Amino acid sequence: MADYLAPLRDMRFALKHLAGLDDVLALPAFAEAGGDIADAVLEEAAKFATGVLSPLNWSGDQEGAKLTPSGVVVAAGFADAYQQFVENGWASMTGDPEYGGQGLPNLLGTAASEMWNSANMAFALNPMLTTGAVEALRAHGSEALKAKYLPNMIAGTWTGTMNLTEPQAGSDLAAVRTKAVPHGDHYLITGQKIFITWGDHDAAENIIHLVLARLPDAPEGTKGISLFLVPKFLVNEDGSLAARNDAVCASLEHKLGIHASPTCVMAFGEQGGAVGYLVGELNRGLNHMFTMMNEARQKVGVQGLAIAERAYQQARDYAKERVQGRVVGVPGKQPILHHPDVRRMLLTMKSQIEAMRALAYLVAADVDYAHNHPDEAARARYQARVELLTPVLKGWCTEVGVEIASLGVQVHGGMGFIEETGAAQHLRDSRIAPIYEGTTGIQAADLIARKLPQHDGAAMTALLADMRETVAAAARQEGAAFQSIARQLAAAVEALVSATGWAKQSMAANPAAALGASVNYMMLAGYVAGGWLMAKAALAAAAEPAQDDFLRAKITSSAFYAEQILPKAAALSVIVHGGSSFAEHLPAEQF
Amino acid sequence: MADYLAPLRDMRFALKHLAGLDDVLALPAFAEAGGDIADAVLEEAAKFATGVLSPLNWSGDQEGAKLTPSGVVVAAGFADAYQQFVENGWASMTGDPEYGGQGLPNLLGTAASEMWNSANMAFALNPMLTTGAVEALRAHGSEALKAKYLPNMIAGTWTGTMNLTEPQAGSDLAAVRTKAVPHGDHYLITGQKIFITWGDHDAAENIIHLVLARLPDAPEGTKGISLFLVPKFLVNEDGSLAARNDAVCASLEHKLGIHASPTCVMAFGEQGGAVGYLVGELNRGLNHMFTMMNEARQKVGVQGLAIAERAYQQARDYAKERVQGRVVGVPGKQPILHHPDVRRMLLTMKSQIEAMRALAYLVAADVDYAHNHPDEAARARYQARVELLTPVLKGWCTEVGVEIASLGVQVHGGMGFIEETGAAQHLRDSRIAPIYEGTTGIQAADLIARKLPQHDGAAMTALLADMRETVAAAARQEGAAFQSIARQLAAAVEALVSATGWAKQSMAANPAAALGASVNYMMLAGYVAGGWLMAKAALAAAAEPAQDDFLRAKITSSAFYAEQILPKAAALSVIVHGGSSFAEHLPAEQF
Repeated sequence: MADYLAPLRDMRFALKHLAGLDDVLALPAFAEAGGDIADAVLEEAAKFATGVLSPLNWSGDQEGAKLTPSGVVVAAGFADAYQQFVENGWASMTGDPEYGGQGLPNLLGTAASEMWNSANMAFALNPMLTTGAVEALRAHGSEALKAKYLPNMIAGTWTGTMNLTEPQAGSDLAAVRTKAVPHGDHYLITGQKIFITWGDHDAAENIIHLVLARLPDAPEGTKGISLFLVPKFLVNEDGSLAARNDAVCASLEHKLGIHASPTCVMAFGEQGGAVGYLVGELNRGLNHMFTMMNEARQKVGVQGLAIAERAYQQARDYAKERVQGRVVGVPGKQPILHHPDVRRMLLTMKSQIEAMRALAYLVAADVDYAHNHPDEAARARYQARVELLTPVLKGWCTEVGVEIASLGVQVHGGMGFIEETGAAQHLRDSRIAPIYEGTTGIQAADLIARKLPQHDGAAMTALLADMRETVAAAARQEGAAFQSIARQLAAAVEALVSATGWAKQSMAANPAAALGASVNYMMLAGYVAGGWLMAKAALAAAAEPAQDDFLRAKITSSAFYAEQILPKAAALSVIVHGGSSFAEHLPAEQF
Repeated sequence: MADYLAPLRDMRFALKHLAGLDDVLALPAFAEAGGDIADAVLEEAAKFATGVLSPLNWSGDQEGAKLTPSGVVVAAGFADAYQQFVENGWASMTGDPEYGGQGLPNLLGTAASEMWNSANMAFALNPMLTTGAVEALRAHGSEALKAKYLPNMIAGTWTGTMNLTEPQAGSDLAAVRTKAVPHGDHYLITGQKIFITWGDHDAAENIIHLVLARLPDAPEGTKGISLFLVPKFLVNEDGSLAARNDAVCASLEHKLGIHASPTCVMAFGEQGGAVGYLVGELNRGLNHMFTMMNEARQKVGVQGLAIAERAYQQARDYAKERVQGRVVGVPGKQPILHHPDVRRMLLTMKSQIEAMRALAYLVAADVDYAHNHPDEAARARYQARVELLTPVLKGWCTEVGVEIASLGVQVHGGMGFIEETGAAQHLRDSRIAPIYEGTTGIQAADLIARKLPQHDGAAMTALLADMRETVAAAARQEGAAFQSIARQLAAAVEALVSATGWAKQSMAANPAAALGASVNYMMLAGYVAGGWLMAKAALAAAAEPAQDDFLRAKITSSAFYAEQILPKAAALSVIVHGGSSFAEHLPAEQF
């Protein structure tokens, strides 16, 4: 299999024209970064992804992580690669400068994260989870806790985990049972957590677990859960490591994919109680976690994009190399790239990847604005769009990611089913993304029941207005491609308008029907948002003074998306209006 | 994971109302079978599938087949299960009575095959391939070859394989290089074949390979390929086994799924030449194979249905058991089955499985009529519909099968990604079906370029007329379900009519555009055929004098299919009309 090569031209195009990187870098918060840092970061990140992470992707899948008596041992090369990752400063890229981070924009961090995940999704989960733990601690931890833990976590010398669910709880964290008993200046934690990504490993000197648990007298349900920091090794006042804490990996899951990412069952307190420190307020643990959830979900959305890009590169390279059969209308033998159906598959992959990238970067830039825009009203406006688009980014990109990884297998024919080819790994890896950090159903419920109605639907109203402006701009352009883009996007936007009206009404009148339609509504919003951004991309490409093959291909890709992907929008709107109504009353025994 | 239970009520419903089992059994060819045999066959097959095959599915996946110095050894229990399969007469069920077969209808064989594949797809491939070899030999072999090999192959004591492709050939069999040199009364075969399903194993006493090869002086391309019978053990005149032939498994593939089905690289003639016997005419080997291809493709279509059913049962049982979260509008804790989005997922699976089953059984019955109807014109009519629907059955059911297996993982949430749960195996197993026996792209090309234009499109014209009759019949029924069915099916049929017109025209004017749209056209035909049969099913259910929950659920399932699946038809028609036109001219470097 070929190593990953970062699609730098398309990444730069999306950063510049769709996410407005120059404007983001011009924010006062990023004044120190310097406007010219982006190119250097992207190029170095691309080298690291290709040279260090990508070569470990297949071997890591085959070898996996192993549980030994002394803890989890990661696959060969992973500890060393992580060491380099930390030394080269990739871990601290977007970290708070107050604790030693480089304070670069989330937008640049997102582009780098795409590369890490394309190159090696199992590896990339470790820094991804660490960032989540850092953000939770930074937002809610005491000054003392932050001073003691954040510098090493931001540097990456210590990694972080999120210990949320338990066997009986699943997605329903109200059911969490892990106990925390006050004990002097700390708490003693006892209980079992499951699905803990990178819960134990030998790639960093310490691991900082954030753990949801209940005090003995806490109220039932969601309002009795608190958040604790539980280090693998206790930390002395001088910052040096002390005794091993009572928190161990009890077993590793045997998973469909991401084999090199150890998914742990974590046992806390088997020797009497793990030492834990309260983060934030008592009984507000779930709220503290929820403030992190949007960002974690954005990152998983980027994984959907990233694994799709990797699957695409694998399939495209095979299609260019593999000579087979005759191509209609072309003499002699040709690579299968020239078969019309293979082109259709590859452009279905490519055009949707470009749309996902545009959406992921747009949301990433919006996060930068929401945090750093000097104007409060602007911050609120960006925050509203971030909240609206986060479940769409997570749900749509991860679902489409699986479809694209599956198409990647298909392009290979029989070779796609052979593990050594590498295409199957991408499908296996991709399959987790629509599940963790909230399943697709949970994203869709979040969108239709929480995000859409916020501020009386203002964020969606504004988004639809932006989309209609793009339709009008495309309609003013000449040529078959733009005519097609304008026509299909106009129809798709009106389908989203109509389905949005239905969704708002139904959420009030018949929530079960609305929730039954919610995934289709969320996918509709994703396809249309993707089409909107692809139209903007085509407009930006056409506006460039010096046309070249890349810019012409961008217009082609946008027109392909309009003709071959966007027609799904009208169908999804009809399906949403159907509201799964016939599903509501089927007796359980008839399933 | 739960063992498979055959959905006998739905199978019987589809056999009776959609495939007309009683009429099939009334054909003179099946006079000896007796009209009442079906129930006994279905019940015994269900017991065998549940009791013998299903318990080996997961262990077979984990253990896989192993290559040893003495040949391939199958996973524990598989050889014994195959022995029972043969002893109970399942191998010979539809075999020619002249050679010891039971001569039962293909329709009943298809229902049994669905059960074998749901219970254990890797196991089921062995009798499936054997049947293919039997049919090739029966149609084209000399009387002497047939007398010597068919009885044991039909009984199942010897299994059969199809040795078609080679590393450089893939789907393009014109590129086959394996050599056959005349040598007395036989030929000496030399060459390497890949992707040989059950190419070697220790579950039967002999294996009969059918091998495509070229004589030294044969013309290039497809017209120089001949078909040979190459037994693993040579056979004496008295039928006893003689020397080991020069045909061995050189290696086993490491695959994404169907681990218990050994996929062999076969080496012929490494010791000088494997003894082979010509089947049929010299240089007509590819034609001889093509006569088998439709039936092999129908069988793989049934695999798509079967693995979807297994994935559905796994997900449904989990959803009924797993208690988690609150259900909107319902007090207390409930199994996740009651979450609206889980119901949507399960009904998306169930309704499409019922539609696939109806299509698979309809085509299976048509095959019986095409072979056995007393009236020649009727035989031709049925044969035309079989040819038209075969690529749809294969392409659509296997693609939807993967989607349903993926949904099955999703219903489980995080547990779906854990291999021990069993849901992931179904996804892994399902992924081969859109690839082997001709990829989805090849099915679609077969449909649009060969099957559709036959007899000036008469088969599709007749099918569309049948569909419109069903629309009219549904419109005459009262109630919301039938109104919805009639409205959505009418729109879907007209979408198929419109896309068919485009396809015919484009195949003449711009074959590359037609081929670029072919997969979407094929999927469109599948969804609409499924919707047509679901509407017929609802009509048949409503016509039953004694209504019960199953019949009411059938109408619900049909209405769900109409509202939640059929709207895709209009979108696919728009996409087909787009014709992938923007894909045609993208420079190779811009992929």
